[in-house]
Amino acid sequence: MTIIQPIPIARPSVDDSVRALIARRRQGYSLEADFYLSPAIFDVDMEEIFGRHWIFVAVEPDIPEPGDYLAVEVGRQSVVLVRDDDGQVRAFHNVCRHRGARLCVQPQGAVGNLVCSYHQWTYTLNGKLAYAEHMGEGFDKSLYSLKPVRVESLSGLIFICLNPDAPDDFAVMRDQVEPYLRPHQIRDCKVASQIDIIEDCNWKLTMENNRECYHCAVNHPELTVSLFEFGFGYQPSPANAEQMQHFDRISAERCQEWEAAGLPSAELEALDGCVTGYRVRRLPLDLAGESQTLDGNAASKKLLGGLSRRDLGGLSLWTQPNAWFHLMSDHIVAFSALPLGPEKTLVRTRWLVHKDAVENVDYNVDNLTAVWRATNAQDRALVELSQQGVRSPAYQPGPYSPYTESLVDKFCNWYVGRLAARYLD
Amino acid sequence: MTIIQPIPIARPSVDDSVRALIARRRQGYSLEADFYLSPAIFDVDMEEIFGRHWIFVAVEPDIPEPGDYLAVEVGRQSVVLVRDDDGQVRAFHNVCRHRGARLCVQPQGAVGNLVCSYHQWTYTLNGKLAYAEHMGEGFDKSLYSLKPVRVESLSGLIFICLNPDAPDDFAVMRDQVEPYLRPHQIRDCKVASQIDIIEDCNWKLTMENNRECYHCAVNHPELTVSLFEFGFGYQPSPANAEQMQHFDRISAERCQEWEAAGLPSAELEALDGCVTGYRVRRLPLDLAGESQTLDGNAASKKLLGGLSRRDLGGLSLWTQPNAWFHLMSDHIVAFSALPLGPEKTLVRTRWLVHKDAVENVDYNVDNLTAVWRATNAQDRALVELSQQGVRSPAYQPGPYSPYTESLVDKFCNWYVGRLAARYLD
Amino acid sequence: MTIIQPIPIARPSVDDSVRALIARRRQGYSLEADFYLSPAIFDVDMEEIFGRHWIFVAVEPDIPEPGDYLAVEVGRQSVVLVRDDDGQVRAFHNVCRHRGARLCVQPQGAVGNLVCSYHQWTYTLNGKLAYAEHMGEGFDKSLYSLKPVRVESLSGLIFICLNPDAPDDFAVMRDQVEPYLRPHQIRDCKVASQIDIIEDCNWKLTMENNRECYHCAVNHPELTVSLFEFGFGYQPSPANAEQMQHFDRISAERCQEWEAAGLPSAELEALDGCVTGYRVRRLPLDLAGESQTLDGNAASKKLLGGLSRRDLGGLSLWTQPNAWFHLMSDHIVAFSALPLGPEKTLVRTRWLVHKDAVENVDYNVDNLTAVWRATNAQDRALVELSQQGVRSPAYQPGPYSPYTESLVDKFCNWYVGRLAARYLD
Repeated sequence: MTIIQPIPIARPSVDDSVRALIARRRQGYSLEADFYLSPAIFDVDMEEIFGRHWIFVAVEPDIPEPGDYLAVEVGRQSVVLVRDDDGQVRAFHNVCRHRGARLCVQPQGAVGNLVCSYHQWTYTLNGKLAYAEHMGEGFDKSLYSLKPVRVESLSGLIFICLNPDAPDDFAVMRDQVEPYLRPHQIRDCKVASQIDIIEDCNWKLTMENNRECYHCAVNHPELTVSLFEFGFGYQPSPANAEQMQHFDRISAERCQEWEAAGLPSAELEALDGCVTGYRVRRLPLDLAGESQTLDGNAASKKLLGGLSRRDLGGLSLWTQPNAWFHLMSDHIVAFSALPLGPEKTLVRTRWLVHKDAVENVDYNVDNLTAVWRATNAQDRALVELSQQGVRSPAYQPGPYSPYTESLVDKFCNWYVGRLAARYLD
Repeated sequence: MTIIQPIPIARPSVDDSVRALIARRRQGYSLEADFYLSPAIFDVDMEEIFGRHWIFVAVEPDIPEPGDYLAVEVGRQSVVLVRDDDGQVRAFHNVCRHRGARLCVQPQGAVGNLVCSYHQWTYTLNGKLAYAEHMGEGFDKSLYSLKPVRVESLSGLIFICLNPDAPDDFAVMRDQVEPYLRPHQIRDCKVASQIDIIEDCNWKLTMENNRECYHCAVNHPELTVSLFEFGFGYQPSPANAEQMQHFDRISAERCQEWEAAGLPSAELEALDGCVTGYRVRRLPLDLAGESQTLDGNAASKKLLGGLSRRDLGGLSLWTQPNAWFHLMSDHIVAFSALPLGPEKTLVRTRWLVHKDAVENVDYNVDNLTAVWRATNAQDRALVELSQQGVRSPAYQPGPYSPYTESLVDKFCNWYVGRLAARYLD
Repeated sequence: MTIIQPIPIARPSVDDSVRALIARRRQGYSLEADFYLSPAIFDVDMEEIFGRHWIFVAVEPDIPEPGDYLAVEVGRQSVVLVRDDDGQVRAFHNVCRHRGARLCVQPQGAVGNLVCSYHQWTYTLNGKLAYAEHMGEGFDKSLYSLKPVRVESLSGLIFICLNPDAPDDFAVMRDQVEPYLRPHQIRDCKVASQIDIIEDCNWKLTMENNRECYHCAVNHPELTVSLFEFGFGYQPSPANAEQMQHFDRISAERCQEWEAAGLPSAELEALDGCVTGYRVRRLPLDLAGESQTLDGNAASKKLLGGLSRRDLGGLSLWTQPNAWFHLMSDHIVAFSALPLGPEKTLVRTRWLVHKDAVENVDYNVDNLTAVWRATNAQDRALVELSQQGVRSPAYQPGPYSPYTESLVDKFCNWYVGRLAARYLD
């Protein structure tokens, strides 16, 4: 069969001004406005960053049983994640091979086969076309399987790569990160709550906001009940010297204690100079030290996996380009940022508890979600102010704090580095 | 007077990628995604297809009396259809010749003259400027008539062509089709109901959906009460052989019977290779065989024109690029598709009954419109799924069924052929 | 510090078609459609007209006390007007110098310092960065003052220029116009009401509508209670000769009377051939002759400034490109038009009364605002019809009345002249 290549009328090629913008990036300073505004850069981001990297999109508990499916949108692409009869998670483009109708219409569901509602072309859970009426004698069904999408599970966290030629260092991240995640047994969780918010900003402002806690003290009263800001960088001063020493001491003590109990906790960072970037670290929490809740106590009585103690602080995992996770002894919060347009981003938050935890007995959804519902709303307001500000021609990149914003700088370095690797070489 | 030509800042010229797209069209397969998505193609469609062909926009019963007007929008154009004092239907650009204000503000109305609400420039029903205050002595009103639009009536179905140099084969369609339409006497009807829906899809997906019934069996329970799917193509199989033979036999019998009674019924097709494309055919209906209603019975007691029998099946007329019609003994359903944007289309449906039929005595609007209200809503859902699907870069044109989608292919062939005739020659 | 210049990915350079459009402008005729529709022209308007001219944006009574601020949006720019501790009005780009967040979030307020809500960077009222946490030892705060915007007050009417190299003929306008304004003592007023409406049209249609009263007689019943149309141009005819002579006579008489009383009243016009264009004139009003109210009587018992008589007619000031004002003995109405997009314009109307006037004792807001609330709504409908009309490719510039639309022509001449001065030289 001849493959008909679509022509890129709508997608501008990368011109010299984009290349110059990438080349001109100044480390230690926020990005130039066009990175947050330009439709040309948005196309570049979707093509290069979201089109060729591993993107976190779901958790295995979204589709626990064979036939369960989840449709996710990444830019103009729609992808169906489906659990096959053999228990494997598979991913396909959510596009019928007949006349292109969207195949799975609901965001989530359970099916025996994948049946297009337009003319009932019917695909098995592994993507083969099993049935198509009226197509005549010579019709070869084997040419019309659903188009596959690369998919990997990191201890139950589902990543896809839209390019068949996916970065091969996912395996490196898996080797390094799975020992941290494994004790929390994500596959044995259920999704207790999922909330989507749409932020009127470029996705990179969402991510930059996530990579620093400089803004936490004043803006996040609920979060900072349990979270120590010191864990995310701080300029030493006589006024805070005692507090910082206290935090460093208990961090070191706890880390040692957790590691001895078989829970990897030390900071591990692979952000700069790698394709599949990540950072992971377990940090103590304040008060009861159990969970990111309004009182620091565990939100679910049923602990995750085989865990027997509640005071395990928070294991945080940050992945490039679009996700972050907080894993505690009793629950997990998983966040993804998915661009909807140059100035619009979907932030999806999932709260996971043990699959056997019973709502209103072992946990209460309001209590479970209270801190991050409030924090997400506060962050949304902040990133939207940023977007409004960078729209002004008067905006000019400003300096990052060497103490509190080094991870923001690393995010930007990784991002610009990935574009440079593709467009400047 | 010097004519000032507007410069096409906003309208991209047709570049090589559009030409390549047209040239690359593969018969028997659905169109490439850019045909449904690209703003450049949308401009081409509005310029060439809707700007230079005969477009169905109204029925004479919309404006039965002198002074009655109807404003219709075709892309960025607004056109006033008005019945002149001599009974003729006239069409003008709905733009005041003074400072360009829209002249007729309401979609429909009755007037003595056409008066601009801004500065009261006043035009007669044949478009002459009759009055303009403050314009001084030397002002020559004869230079400021409303700009005319070409208009034709096909037995009461009103078509316009926005280009003064309109295709001259409208006369051919008139000669061929009017004998079919005449017995239904459209000019003696009234509009019993009109419903607009906006479909979030390219207009060609609306049209393609209309040109096949492959999707009917599963998706249109109300329509298939009276409509035989066999009338629109079917792959023969042992399972349906008996049904198809039955349908072919009664079709032939009825056709002969209707023709003998002076009602042209045989299929007539001029789709490929002509400018003003159409297809017409009278087909039997199921059950009572009278009308496309939920029980197959006529919806209006007062039959159309001079008709005396109710079981005349459905006379269907399809015109390129944008309309289709079902004429029965008791009522007519007339559909038009008008593009609002690359991914937005207005579908306007009119239900016509005899002008002397009395509402709630001879007919009931709910009953009259029930089948097509339901069917339109179902079709809207389907074409919107198609649009969502073709947005994905993973979409690739798929094969049409040689049995059930040959008229879709002919629509696409006509469409691409018209573009090729203009842009590839 | 190296200044990083943003690259203009989003802003198209001015190409030959724009230059040709400017060069082709035909005096005495309305503008070509692209001037009202084209995004390229909108960018030119924001760059040249709103980016390099004096724009009316506020009145001093908006920010009477030190620390009072007002945020105004001009295109993609946000500007904070703030009254400094020394009583001076200052203007800054509303963009934090750290990561660009919008600084003042509310449209209006009162503060001690300007504090960014993101990371609490803190600026004094004269724009100096006073405090920024975590920035380390070598951080030089003096490099991160807020970026200033040029600001001038015309007897209390606040104009800004976004370009540091502002037109220097503001001083000429001040010398000429302040004697007219001074007796009304704008700085001693308060804003009794402010109403924003968004018109779905290009800003120039808003302005053109404001520069003629040809449309008043039929469209503005409330306004023409007090306003004589004759004051804005009229074609002489036997039918209106007597009325016009009457108006001319009382105009001359009143003008002489007012001038003698120290109130400059004669027409002063500097529209064509100047950068900062304006026109000012005091005209008699009908009935009681006191105010633009539904009965012609003053709307506020407390007269402005040191004025002692109520029958001072209406002093009208029109400024290019975006404002107009009516000053009466008892109240002032101030209008600004600010483009929001090629086809969207914000019209902000402020009603000012003496700062000591007491609501519901000296004046009533409903009565004060009745005429212009009605008139604005009527004008909005008219300019939106114009916008709808010029969208049609059938629109062609039409002739202005030499009697009633000469000021519209002058507005267009000034506008096109300003573009020509920049882009054709």
